[in-house]
Amino acid sequence: MAVPPSTYPRRLLPLFLGLFQAALLLFFALFVTYDEPSTQAEDTSLVADQVYSTFPFFQDIQVMLVVGLGLLLTFLPCYGFSSLTHNFLLLNFSMQWALVLQGLLHHFHHGQIHLDLHKLLISEFAAVTVLISMGAILGRASPCQLLVMATCEIPIYLASEWVIVTCLGVLDVGGTITIHIFSCYFGLGVSKALFRATQQPLHPKETPTTSSDLMSLVGTLILWVFWPSFVAVLCQPGDAQHRAILNTLLAMSASAITTVVASSLLQRDGKLSPGHLQNGSLAGGVAIGVVADMAVPPVAALALGSLSAVLCVLGFKFLTPLLGRKLKLHDQCGIHNLHGLPGILGAAASVVAVLVASKDTS
Amino acid sequence: MAVPPSTYPRRLLPLFLGLFQAALLLFFALFVTYDEPSTQAEDTSLVADQVYSTFPFFQDIQVMLVVGLGLLLTFLPCYGFSSLTHNFLLLNFSMQWALVLQGLLHHFHHGQIHLDLHKLLISEFAAVTVLISMGAILGRASPCQLLVMATCEIPIYLASEWVIVTCLGVLDVGGTITIHIFSCYFGLGVSKALFRATQQPLHPKETPTTSSDLMSLVGTLILWVFWPSFVAVLCQPGDAQHRAILNTLLAMSASAITTVVASSLLQRDGKLSPGHLQNGSLAGGVAIGVVADMAVPPVAALALGSLSAVLCVLGFKFLTPLLGRKLKLHDQCGIHNLHGLPGILGAAASVVAVLVASKDTS
Amino acid sequence: MAVPPSTYPRRLLPLFLGLFQAALLLFFALFVTYDEPSTQAEDTSLVADQVYSTFPFFQDIQVMLVVGLGLLLTFLPCYGFSSLTHNFLLLNFSMQWALVLQGLLHHFHHGQIHLDLHKLLISEFAAVTVLISMGAILGRASPCQLLVMATCEIPIYLASEWVIVTCLGVLDVGGTITIHIFSCYFGLGVSKALFRATQQPLHPKETPTTSSDLMSLVGTLILWVFWPSFVAVLCQPGDAQHRAILNTLLAMSASAITTVVASSLLQRDGKLSPGHLQNGSLAGGVAIGVVADMAVPPVAALALGSLSAVLCVLGFKFLTPLLGRKLKLHDQCGIHNLHGLPGILGAAASVVAVLVASKDTS
Repeated sequence: MAVPPSTYPRRLLPLFLGLFQAALLLFFALFVTYDEPSTQAEDTSLVADQVYSTFPFFQDIQVMLVVGLGLLLTFLPCYGFSSLTHNFLLLNFSMQWALVLQGLLHHFHHGQIHLDLHKLLISEFAAVTVLISMGAILGRASPCQLLVMATCEIPIYLASEWVIVTCLGVLDVGGTITIHIFSCYFGLGVSKALFRATQQPLHPKETPTTSSDLMSLVGTLILWVFWPSFVAVLCQPGDAQHRAILNTLLAMSASAITTVVASSLLQRDGKLSPGHLQNGSLAGGVAIGVVADMAVPPVAALALGSLSAVLCVLGFKFLTPLLGRKLKLHDQCGIHNLHGLPGILGAAASVVAVLVASKDTS
Repeated sequence: MAVPPSTYPRRLLPLFLGLFQAALLLFFALFVTYDEPSTQAEDTSLVADQVYSTFPFFQDIQVMLVVGLGLLLTFLPCYGFSSLTHNFLLLNFSMQWALVLQGLLHHFHHGQIHLDLHKLLISEFAAVTVLISMGAILGRASPCQLLVMATCEIPIYLASEWVIVTCLGVLDVGGTITIHIFSCYFGLGVSKALFRATQQPLHPKETPTTSSDLMSLVGTLILWVFWPSFVAVLCQPGDAQHRAILNTLLAMSASAITTVVASSLLQRDGKLSPGHLQNGSLAGGVAIGVVADMAVPPVAALALGSLSAVLCVLGFKFLTPLLGRKLKLHDQCGIHNLHGLPGILGAAASVVAVLVASKDTS
Repeated sequence: MAVPPSTYPRRLLPLFLGLFQAALLLFFALFVTYDEPSTQAEDTSLVADQVYSTFPFFQDIQVMLVVGLGLLLTFLPCYGFSSLTHNFLLLNFSMQWALVLQGLLHHFHHGQIHLDLHKLLISEFAAVTVLISMGAILGRASPCQLLVMATCEIPIYLASEWVIVTCLGVLDVGGTITIHIFSCYFGLGVSKALFRATQQPLHPKETPTTSSDLMSLVGTLILWVFWPSFVAVLCQPGDAQHRAILNTLLAMSASAITTVVASSLLQRDGKLSPGHLQNGSLAGGVAIGVVADMAVPPVAALALGSLSAVLCVLGFKFLTPLLGRKLKLHDQCGIHNLHGLPGILGAAASVVAVLVASKDTS
């Protein structure tokens, strides 16, 4: 482990954050503004419609990230409050930092950035990558280390997203590739870099209790319920969005049941492992993101959900211990099983879907 | 008690679920498809409007069933995690099973079933019956017994719903008769059939603790908040839906206060019973379902909410012990008090409402 | 402390509530009705649009008040269940009482009050004042004392709101002045009046535990997520509402980060205080209410959020102990730090905003 949190110079955190907040204020004062209020009744109604069609999705995603993901991370007893706090702090920091960088990169017109709900949403998506990566080093990294990670990860994410979406033209509404796969391997890299020396024995604080597992499962369920909003929010309104919602619902439902099947079969006593359930149920949502709004048949969503849940449970059972032993890679929350493996499966599925579609139309 | 869970053949559960999931994949591959994407701008906007008017309600109902009902069932300490898991598993299984059966019965055109959000919603309503019935045998039935119950209950529900709504022409937007009364008596029947032998003494695991009561109350509050969405989602948009929302809000509010009154008066020390509050506050929502969108005056909603809460509290105090003693009927969560009695009250109220309305117009 | 709850005449509570509920039924039977259902298709679509534009916000606010605020108040261990219950009971009682009074004052036409969702929303806003004031005397007042407070506070709030909004013409969409400042000082007055005699030593029940702090933080996060709905629900649809949402999001985000900075700097060991985080993160939402829909630049929202969080943390650290020592004023939840100080800051900011705006246009 790096410097233990107790001896860490604790004044660094507020100094760093305070300076960042001051710089943000300056940046906003100089460059950020709202759109001029529209004066025509038609425009007003258009803005109102945009708010009504985006804001409920936006709120759902906020609940996912702030409450759902926060609770999911509380499975380490004695560390629950810190997990919830760090998740909340990192989300806000990363969102503001992404807002600045995206403003500079994409939305800088005539020396001004026009802020709207859509730009906040895009920044929130960028912040998700940091929250996922945090899962690999949860409970072992100090808040300052987490902030440094966030500071580095956001610009690298924006660059990689620009390459993948703008240059390569990959369609990825649910962020399977740009968010899940990217942040998983970024987080594992950080974990390797920070804790490379020796493999830590399992600390007693890291054994979940009944009550911490219950809270964590509540977090999973909140994520499970609102996942369709996350996948569908950036889709074209109409059929594509409708299909994205249905595909995600089907994939999540298949994941939930398949996780129970896979976990019961693999455990010697036939009992369900809490960790499998907390993660496997969400695997379908990760995998479906990249094909959710494509014209795939419903059975593909079900199959993708089932397969990704199987992969996730197998990953927890075999791959995580193997990586720990062979590569001395520590993955606290098993993000490789929830975000890495299902993400790769989803990416492969999207290649198949595109090939089939292009064959059909040719 | 039937076979105790510890000696139960634990491989049955994953086998049964795995086969079901495989069959579902096959069924979807052969028969289920999405609507063709519409090509006209007008249709696209229509689909978008349908999504925006249904999806927020759908999400509210998902929160109710997955998080709210799940937490409500965690009042048995040491059994909280299992309750939450079984509720989640049964919801997904029942919804998929209802989707298949309803597809076969109602939506089979030219060898294909066109899936949309509305059909998923209807299947979710069917799954609610299983979750309610589970309340009678919570903590005593193995997961396999619960799955067998779900497998039988869904087709019987569909048949009974067809008879009540299609044949008899009963209007029941909130599912008071078709969902609440039906699932209550179905669940009690299952409880009687499984555990008829002897009355069990109260297990120490079944005495709620402060912390399990708190979690359970949070579940109640989540159900309480979102209940209007459950009642209003299938109403005609416009006045009827507006009225259904208002009636449900009034009934729930009256229930909450009347529960406190009734419980305090009945308890010898004047203290509020957690069980009464967790259930009585929701009784108004059960009773109002059948008349929610009718042209009843607001005072009727208030009166119905108050009366059903009184009935619910009286049921817990007198009827449940009586049924346990006389009929050896075990009702773990008191579903007869929350779903049976208020449901019957609501059904009676709807008869009065229809009679008054037909008198007015004649 | 006044009469300790254990010797309190416990029959008073149900009698009082029961009589109130009976009187409410009578009042509704005599005076309250719904609008006549519209017969024209155009009107129906108008009503539907109103429902879709208001109901999601309304539900968000219900979640905030019933679940979020309820959980925030559970930080006193051994008192968590009571806090959640009292909050729920007071919300319902106050809403019904406000509905009656507002109906009599504002909406009485031809001997009838036409109920709609907007009127329920306005009553809910009135009920918020009672829930905030309760924070000052949480855990020390009996349920009956709380109900008496609610009975008195609602009419005084309605009078003060009428003076501020109708007579003085103050614009205050987020209720910074009318709700937060008012209820803070009302609650402090009640605390002083009830517990003036001696300063109570800190009861062991009043020291939060890890688990009660965690639940309370979950409540904070729920409030944090849905606060934009609270501020924006009464705004003009279109640009003003869009701006209110954005301003609130920015202010809340700045509050969250600044709270961490201020709390870490002030605590001797550099550790974050749970109480600071639970309250400071929300301070920006209180302060922004009064200017949220005005044409202020984004940087103003950020600055207001940061400043109010600093004020809130400073209040907890220095002002609350001072008030306790000098004025023997007991403020259990620190409502003066969360609602009083940020509210005054927001009111001052609105004066500046109006002055700047009138200068610009002249």
